[in-house]
Amino acid sequence: MQNFSERIEEGDLKSPSSNIQPCRFDGNRLVILDQTQLPVRLSYRNLKNYKAVAKAIKTLQVRGAPLIGVIAACGLALEAKKRVAKKNFRSYLTQVAKVLKKTRPTAVNLFWAIERIEKIIEQPLPNQKLSKLLMLEAQKIWDEEKKRSLAMGKVGAKLVKKNAHILTICNSGKLAAPGLGTALSVIYTAAINKKNPLVYVCETRPLLQGARLTAFELTRAGIAFVLITDSMVGTIASRIDLVLVGADRIAANGDVANKIGTLTLAITANHYQLPFYVVAPISTFDLTKPNGNAITIEMRGSDEISKIGGQRIAPKGVRVYNPAFDITPAKMITGIITDKGIIYPPYQKSIAKFCQ
Amino acid sequence: MQNFSERIEEGDLKSPSSNIQPCRFDGNRLVILDQTQLPVRLSYRNLKNYKAVAKAIKTLQVRGAPLIGVIAACGLALEAKKRVAKKNFRSYLTQVAKVLKKTRPTAVNLFWAIERIEKIIEQPLPNQKLSKLLMLEAQKIWDEEKKRSLAMGKVGAKLVKKNAHILTICNSGKLAAPGLGTALSVIYTAAINKKNPLVYVCETRPLLQGARLTAFELTRAGIAFVLITDSMVGTIASRIDLVLVGADRIAANGDVANKIGTLTLAITANHYQLPFYVVAPISTFDLTKPNGNAITIEMRGSDEISKIGGQRIAPKGVRVYNPAFDITPAKMITGIITDKGIIYPPYQKSIAKFCQ
Repeated sequence: MQNFSERIEEGDLKSPSSNIQPCRFDGNRLVILDQTQLPVRLSYRNLKNYKAVAKAIKTLQVRGAPLIGVIAACGLALEAKKRVAKKNFRSYLTQVAKVLKKTRPTAVNLFWAIERIEKIIEQPLPNQKLSKLLMLEAQKIWDEEKKRSLAMGKVGAKLVKKNAHILTICNSGKLAAPGLGTALSVIYTAAINKKNPLVYVCETRPLLQGARLTAFELTRAGIAFVLITDSMVGTIASRIDLVLVGADRIAANGDVANKIGTLTLAITANHYQLPFYVVAPISTFDLTKPNGNAITIEMRGSDEISKIGGQRIAPKGVRVYNPAFDITPAKMITGIITDKGIIYPPYQKSIAKFCQ
Repeated sequence: MQNFSERIEEGDLKSPSSNIQPCRFDGNRLVILDQTQLPVRLSYRNLKNYKAVAKAIKTLQVRGAPLIGVIAACGLALEAKKRVAKKNFRSYLTQVAKVLKKTRPTAVNLFWAIERIEKIIEQPLPNQKLSKLLMLEAQKIWDEEKKRSLAMGKVGAKLVKKNAHILTICNSGKLAAPGLGTALSVIYTAAINKKNPLVYVCETRPLLQGARLTAFELTRAGIAFVLITDSMVGTIASRIDLVLVGADRIAANGDVANKIGTLTLAITANHYQLPFYVVAPISTFDLTKPNGNAITIEMRGSDEISKIGGQRIAPKGVRVYNPAFDITPAKMITGIITDKGIIYPPYQKSIAKFCQ
C-alpha cells in the first residue's frame, strides 16, 4: 500500500452516509488520513515505521487526544512485529516508546496508551509472544476508545434539547477519536436521535481545525452548522444553548487543558450563564496533576500565526506567542461528560471517585 | 501620478523614524496607501473620481473610522473641483454624497464628515465659490481629526504606567486616522513619553488588521509587541495591565460598536477586572442612537472567513456568519478616552455633556 491521495470534489461532501476513518490498522499496515491536507484533499499515508508515526503525530497529520494515543499504540505494536528478530528486542521497544512520548507533551492519552504498551514490554517473555500481546493490547486500546466515544455520545445527548444551538471549538469528532469523537460524539448522537442540533463552529486559529476538520466532518454527516471566527463567541453567545468542548488532559481538581481558545470560550459562557460541558473519556484524566498549573502546555512555532497556508500575513520577524492549549479552571465548567456518566462539582471528590 | 507600488523589504521595517501616511491630498490628487496589500507591499492608488473613492472604502483599501470620513470629504471636494463647470452642480454633488454614504454602514465618522460637506453643498452659492469652500472644509476635517488624534494620545497616555502591557484589537493607529490614530495614539504617545509599553496585538480575524496593519505600524515605530490569535485573550489576560480599543460608533448611552471581537475582549477584561478603555474622537459619537441595538452592523461576505488570501480553508458552500462589528455594552467599559478628556460612567449623562 503506497501513500495515495484523492482530490475532494464538492459532490463528495453532500452524502450524509459517507464515513470518515482517520486511521486503518490491520496488524500489518498502519494507514492514516493526513489531516493537514483537509478539507482540500483526502490524502492517506502508510506509516511504515515508528519514525513515520512520530512524525505524523508531531506534524499534526494525526491529532486529537484519544486518536494519537491509539496511533502510538498501533505504531509500537507494528514496530514490535517487524523487529521481532531483533537483538535487545525489549530495550529497543522501550526506546521507541520514549521517542513516541516526546512527540507532543499536553494530551495525556498519548502517555496513557504508551504506558499500557510499556507494561507489556516489561514482561520477560519470548519476542514472538510479546509481539502478539502488544498487538492484542493495541487493538484493545482502539476498541476501548471507540466504545468510550460511543458511550460519551449517549450520555451527553441526553443534555441536548430539540433544535439546540451548540457552540464548539477545534475538532473533537471522528478525526480526533475512534468512533464518533468526544464533544462531536454528543452532537452526532443527538442528531441520530433526531434532536436536529445547529452547531456553531469556531474556526480555531491558528491551525483552523474547526474550519478545516469539524466543518468537513459535519458537512459529510449532513449536520447543520455555522462557521464563525473565534473572536465572535461574545457576539453569538445569546443564540447558544450549550457549549461542548473536548479535552487534552484533565487534572485531579477538574482543571482542563484543551485547545487554545477554550478558556476564552468558557469565560464567555460563564458571563452569559451558558452551560459549559467538557466531553472526555477516562483516558484523558491525569490524577498525577493536582491542578492545571502542573500541566505542560505545548508551545508551537511562530509561523503557525505569522503565516497561513505558507502565505505571510504579518511582517517578517514579528514576536509571536503560540501556546497550543490553555487551561480552563474547574470552577468554570458545568460538568464533564464521560463514558461512565456526567461528573459534576465538587470535582476533586467526584473525579477521584470516577477514576477509582 | 499613477498607481505605484513598492515591495517592502525587511530593512524598511527596522527604522523607528519611518513614517506612514495612509493618504495624501494636495487639492488636486487624492492618493491612498492600499491597506489590503500590507504588510507585503506598499501600494499607492490615485483615486481619480468619486467612484474610485467609493470602491476604495468599500473594499477596505482605506479603512479606520476617522480615516474613511476624511477620505470621503476629500473625495467630495476633489469631485467638486473637477466638475465645477457641470450643470446641476449642487444636485450632482448631493448624488455623489449619497453614493459615498452607502459604502459602509457602521462607522459614523463617514456620515459625520459627509454631512458637514452636505451642509455646504446646500448653500446657494456660485459653483467656483462652493468648490473652494468644500476644499477648505475637507482640509478642516482632516486637520481637526489629526488634532483630535494627538489630543487623545496625550489624554490617554496619562493612564499608561511604565512598562505597561497593553492589549488591543484591529488597527486603530496611523492607518486608521490622521495623526497617530485612536487607541494606538495613546500607545505612541506613551512610548514617546518613555513609558516603554509592550503591546499584545490580536490578529483580528477575519481580515487580520492586527497582524497585517498594527504589527506593521508598531514594527516601523520600534514599539515592542507580541502578536496573538484572537482566541488567546483569555490565556494572556493575567499579563495585561490595560485594554485599549478604538470605536466605529458610540451610542448616546455609551454602547460601543467596534471591530468584531471587541465584545469578547471586553467580557474577558471584565472577568479579570482589567481596565477596558475605548479611545475615540468626538466624530465617533452618535447621539441619534439611544443604544447599541440601534446601530447597523455591517455583514460581510462568507469568503472572508472560508478563504484566507484566496486559499480555501473550509469546505465549499459552508454557512458562515460574518458581522464586521459587535456591540460592547456601556457597563463593560471603564472609560472612553476622547480628545477633550476621559468620559466615565454614568455615560448617558457624561456623553450628553461632552457632546454639547
